[in-house]
Amino acid sequence: MNLQEIGKRAKAAARLAARLSTNEKNRILRLVADALEADTAALLAANAPDVVNATNDGKNAAFIDRLTLTEARIATMARDMRNVAALDDPVNEVMEMKTLPSGITVGKKRVPLGVVGVIYESRPNVTADVFGLCFKAGNVAILRGGKEAINTNTAITNTCRNALAENGLSPDFIQLVEDTSREGALEMMRLTEYLDVLIPRGNGGLIKAVVENSRVPVIETGMGNCHIFVDASADLDKATRIILNAKTQRPGVCNACEKLLVHRAVADSYLPAVCKALADAGVELRGNRAAADICADITLVPPEAAEWHNEYLDLIIGIAVVDNLSAAIDHITAHSTGHSEAILTESYANAQTFLQEVDSAAVYVNASTRFTDGSEFGLGAEIGISTQKLHARGPMGLRELTSYKYIVYGNGEVRG
Amino acid sequence: MNLQEIGKRAKAAARLAARLSTNEKNRILRLVADALEADTAALLAANAPDVVNATNDGKNAAFIDRLTLTEARIATMARDMRNVAALDDPVNEVMEMKTLPSGITVGKKRVPLGVVGVIYESRPNVTADVFGLCFKAGNVAILRGGKEAINTNTAITNTCRNALAENGLSPDFIQLVEDTSREGALEMMRLTEYLDVLIPRGNGGLIKAVVENSRVPVIETGMGNCHIFVDASADLDKATRIILNAKTQRPGVCNACEKLLVHRAVADSYLPAVCKALADAGVELRGNRAAADICADITLVPPEAAEWHNEYLDLIIGIAVVDNLSAAIDHITAHSTGHSEAILTESYANAQTFLQEVDSAAVYVNASTRFTDGSEFGLGAEIGISTQKLHARGPMGLRELTSYKYIVYGNGEVRG
Repeated sequence: MNLQEIGKRAKAAARLAARLSTNEKNRILRLVADALEADTAALLAANAPDVVNATNDGKNAAFIDRLTLTEARIATMARDMRNVAALDDPVNEVMEMKTLPSGITVGKKRVPLGVVGVIYESRPNVTADVFGLCFKAGNVAILRGGKEAINTNTAITNTCRNALAENGLSPDFIQLVEDTSREGALEMMRLTEYLDVLIPRGNGGLIKAVVENSRVPVIETGMGNCHIFVDASADLDKATRIILNAKTQRPGVCNACEKLLVHRAVADSYLPAVCKALADAGVELRGNRAAADICADITLVPPEAAEWHNEYLDLIIGIAVVDNLSAAIDHITAHSTGHSEAILTESYANAQTFLQEVDSAAVYVNASTRFTDGSEFGLGAEIGISTQKLHARGPMGLRELTSYKYIVYGNGEVRG
Repeated sequence: MNLQEIGKRAKAAARLAARLSTNEKNRILRLVADALEADTAALLAANAPDVVNATNDGKNAAFIDRLTLTEARIATMARDMRNVAALDDPVNEVMEMKTLPSGITVGKKRVPLGVVGVIYESRPNVTADVFGLCFKAGNVAILRGGKEAINTNTAITNTCRNALAENGLSPDFIQLVEDTSREGALEMMRLTEYLDVLIPRGNGGLIKAVVENSRVPVIETGMGNCHIFVDASADLDKATRIILNAKTQRPGVCNACEKLLVHRAVADSYLPAVCKALADAGVELRGNRAAADICADITLVPPEAAEWHNEYLDLIIGIAVVDNLSAAIDHITAHSTGHSEAILTESYANAQTFLQEVDSAAVYVNASTRFTDGSEFGLGAEIGISTQKLHARGPMGLRELTSYKYIVYGNGEVRG
């Protein structure tokens, strides 16, 4: 089906999705979860050729792992969908209602965004996860996954669509774009008549391409060049525990620590210890001149190197010795992607300054940047982590998949 | 100065603006208001050649009127700036702070958007108004007004910049783009490195051009093809008063009523009366076949005519007789720009259905669409009226010029 037709169907379905009651949405989500489990054999069968093709194409082991479905992973998709059913429904909440001097009573009512487009890569669980979150927030989803997962994504989408249709609902609450070409992606980015928002999920190149080419409003997600600054007054035992967690607990994700800044006053005493702990955990050490001078295991990275701006997404860390808090904030301001940054300090004043002046989606005192996550922040689930300032910032849950409208109750009022 | 340099200066100034206390911002806004009044003679002198040039270029009377500064209008600009000083400061509000199971305490802190770009036409008061609102919300402004107002805008900007500099603040909290060419506008729309948001203010063509060409996130404002639906149970005396107000009180603005839908059950009895009232007020009547059949003063507009989608911004109204509430909602869904729509009804069920199903920025029961306005909705002032769903919808006040960041207080927590 061409994108115009997909868009038209999505727009029509969005009116229906917005009207569903919370009970009805929850019931359907549980039925779709059941259907995913019931279709396990068919989903695994659809996944097999995708895995074979990707292997033949020479994709690396991590890619194949992300692409591969297992019975356990299908069970997780179903469990996550049931969890979404259990979350509060943000739709129809009325906020800030008040009667104004003219006599009209005005409030803001939370409504679905409408049609949500998502462009992603080859993790098939995204297909089910995005549908669950979009549907619970009263939206319809147009999904465009990676070409390597096309058979798997088609099967998952069909399971969802069949479950919807069997329960008397529009199957078009979820549609998959079959054209996985680059041209198809560009066309999707221009579907302004039908898409209310476009969310790219994937590597930096994918996100950049969407931000630069989309005419549909975009929410930029996920790039995380996250910094931890060890202040002169830091509790150094806590610091090492936090740094190890933030760097090594899951190095391939966007909230992992990529850069370590150390206050000059504690660099001589602390750097050798933290570097040893990181190296023991298998982390490759790179750093600026002052850091390399203190610790011989650190490979020099010149100040102008692009990597001060980039994510490693690997067991590598960039270390810079900085003169003071102000220099740390300047470094972060110059190099951060605006995701997550932490200060480790026992100074009240420095903690407050850092929280105030660092302008990132999540700013921490004395905790691991790994907490930047919808579940950890109490949102229940997330569709992505926004690194832009418009609409939503940081982990985006169900509420961030909504808009609002003003509702006005009058009694014949006119404007004077 | 070129746009790259303007952007760089704005970015640097934004860090300073975000740190200002509310008292400091209010004090400065009052000083800038004083400076605008003190510079009245210079501002009028700068405005004179703009008015002469526009007159020589054959601009119409309405254009010249919007362009022309007077002592009273400068006083209004100053008064509006003092009013903004008196509004609550949205910045630094902390929302939804709670301690989560892991032990971290997480809240959302309201922060400025950063660098706000505004592309507008030839109403010089916009220059001062936008600066006042942006500054109060901790943002810096890059302004690009119409070429016809360049001397006036330069003078207003200089008054603001001088007042800032004289009080020890960065003059770059407000910068005017001197290049008013089309290419300059396109370059501004690609200033993604420096602009956090771009807000177009002006006619439909300007807004469309920005939405289609901008790579910077845009907030679409102001197009209003607003509908009023007279239900079968409407209080018809109230209806006529509301319709006359919505159509004629200020026909050239975006919240004026452009289309009137009348339930078939009351069309025969009510249409002649409301048409007479509208015609007596100088309104030209156009309508669909069913409406024209009832009232001979109505000029026929075929169903496929573009004007069912468009704003008149003039003393013209499009009238359609519709079969029922559902047909009215379908007509609105198909033709609305998503600005403001009203139902006039005494039916509880129909009022609730209309509020639920019409997806516009402001949805009314029994009141004039003319109330869609930042002041009337209790926001104090507005920078525009958003007709998109992302970030902000409807009148945008100070709070809509902010974003938020998550702040996290920990005590050594790591993720398990």
